[in-house]
Amino acid sequence: MSDQTPDPRYDVIAIGNAIVDVLAHSRDEAIEELGLTRGGMTLVDTARAAELYAHMGQTTQVSGGSAANTLAGLAMLGARCAFIGQVADDTLGEVFAHDVRAADIAFGTPARAGDPPTGRCLIFVTDDAQRTMNTFLGASQFLPAEALDLDAIADSAVLYLEGYLWDPEEPRLAMRKAIETAKGAGRRVAFTLSDTFVIDRHGDDFRELIAQGQVDILFANAVELASLTGIADFEEGLASLTGKVPVVVATRGEHGAVAIAHGERAEVPAEPIERVVDTTGAGDLFAAGFLFGHVRGRPLADCLRMGAICAREVISHFGARPEVDLAGLIAEQVG
Amino acid sequence: MSDQTPDPRYDVIAIGNAIVDVLAHSRDEAIEELGLTRGGMTLVDTARAAELYAHMGQTTQVSGGSAANTLAGLAMLGARCAFIGQVADDTLGEVFAHDVRAADIAFGTPARAGDPPTGRCLIFVTDDAQRTMNTFLGASQFLPAEALDLDAIADSAVLYLEGYLWDPEEPRLAMRKAIETAKGAGRRVAFTLSDTFVIDRHGDDFRELIAQGQVDILFANAVELASLTGIADFEEGLASLTGKVPVVVATRGEHGAVAIAHGERAEVPAEPIERVVDTTGAGDLFAAGFLFGHVRGRPLADCLRMGAICAREVISHFGARPEVDLAGLIAEQVG
Repeated sequence: MSDQTPDPRYDVIAIGNAIVDVLAHSRDEAIEELGLTRGGMTLVDTARAAELYAHMGQTTQVSGGSAANTLAGLAMLGARCAFIGQVADDTLGEVFAHDVRAADIAFGTPARAGDPPTGRCLIFVTDDAQRTMNTFLGASQFLPAEALDLDAIADSAVLYLEGYLWDPEEPRLAMRKAIETAKGAGRRVAFTLSDTFVIDRHGDDFRELIAQGQVDILFANAVELASLTGIADFEEGLASLTGKVPVVVATRGEHGAVAIAHGERAEVPAEPIERVVDTTGAGDLFAAGFLFGHVRGRPLADCLRMGAICAREVISHFGARPEVDLAGLIAEQVG
Repeated sequence: MSDQTPDPRYDVIAIGNAIVDVLAHSRDEAIEELGLTRGGMTLVDTARAAELYAHMGQTTQVSGGSAANTLAGLAMLGARCAFIGQVADDTLGEVFAHDVRAADIAFGTPARAGDPPTGRCLIFVTDDAQRTMNTFLGASQFLPAEALDLDAIADSAVLYLEGYLWDPEEPRLAMRKAIETAKGAGRRVAFTLSDTFVIDRHGDDFRELIAQGQVDILFANAVELASLTGIADFEEGLASLTGKVPVVVATRGEHGAVAIAHGERAEVPAEPIERVVDTTGAGDLFAAGFLFGHVRGRPLADCLRMGAICAREVISHFGARPEVDLAGLIAEQVG
């Protein structure tokens, strides 16, 4: 697993959706009235997005995108990061690009002219802090393979891929090319499964990538793990990946997380928190903390704790990007 | 102080800046490097706004405006509210209007065509949770007196005015007309001093309004109080307003707040909080909690506690609009 090229330019390069989140607090009944899939991620078109926005409460807008959120956490912790994703040439695209660069993440994918506009995700947050996401992918789904910076991919210790983006065709082809490039350069590939709907549609692809040894680090929650392996029991599902994926990280919401790395198993409880406000980005920031520990060569238990601490920060407020200095939190609490 | 007309349509109608806040975490050194006035509010033009945005970290966008923030808190607590303020006919204007209406606040001021665009406030939040605000007023400063809904003002228990908006000429004239209308209808006028720069420029106006008995409820922090009264000692400054303003509420940051209402004095400590993230809107939400108690006829000490609880919520996260159900917090903690 060691890198064949010394001193890679980036610790982590990620390919993901380039979208801006629009979050609002919501009554439980509104989820039902609007026919939303509670706790899930649903793709919506322009008309549905406009309809849902009209029914949203007062909003907070924060750049999002699962992999971009993870990078924002990683960069704040001190990792060198780069992002590849497609925005349109419009106001939200400028906001996304500003925010990703302001987070000290290299971002060179050119904006795409014309329709569709930059993607956005309308997120309804209910009293239990559950988030119900409705994503208008917009330009995000048209990331072409030509937009990849192959040199940067070959020069990054880890290539991190967002499962959501496996669904549309162009980005899927781009991601296949990125995997080939990374593996060819002796790099590690990390993959987050994102959502069961992606596994329903592309599970065979994922199982094949795993069988071919293309995935070095896999992030999943319990439901995604069951869906991928076809095994309902959490521990059995996890065990079934041993020997196939070097590092598997499975999150279980308020029950914490488990990782198995090269046969070693570690577990962490969720961090105590006074009030969970919005669970958007919990998995993304868990991945950030874990990966930071991983690229810095920290013990597995520390990697998990870093993940839990980053996740706790992001669920304490609206939006999936950290608001307080994560490096400080980690230094205080893990050292 | 009782309302002469029974059952007013609104508990509180407010006139204020209609702006969207753009918040980012900032290093302490950046405040100095960029020549910002730490902890203050500075007006900026288009060019300076663009320069500062380029130097901001990853942003969160939330509708703001001092009086609009106060109304958002009041409406969430269950008060009937209306807002008057000027947006432009652009994307940020739509966001502001969506958010204020989504908060259940009546808002009928027509958008203004052409330049300048909707106002925005670039807010740098440092590690100590201090906010440094740079406001591009945009359309906000062109609120004309003709845009006032005089019937609504006459039919609201309290007219709430934002001191910031006393500075530009058109809104100042509009606010004078609004005061006349409210007082003519036997309503109460509440005024928040907003910032010492406003008092430096318009202190004579404010002292005259007070001398004429036009201000029924005055909100100030300790520095503004000293600036208005010309008395450095907090208690003496407060005492100097007795008999001139029926209700005076003075906030003192982490030292809590004091109110004197019709000769009765009450005091409240700041609410305990695990981590202060961003103090933007602390005063606005304190005013919301206090005013809610006031219009509901609660004892003075309860009004102050409601203010402190609402302020605590808003300083626990980025942005000046509440993220969790304030009514629930109040019910739990004050009853």
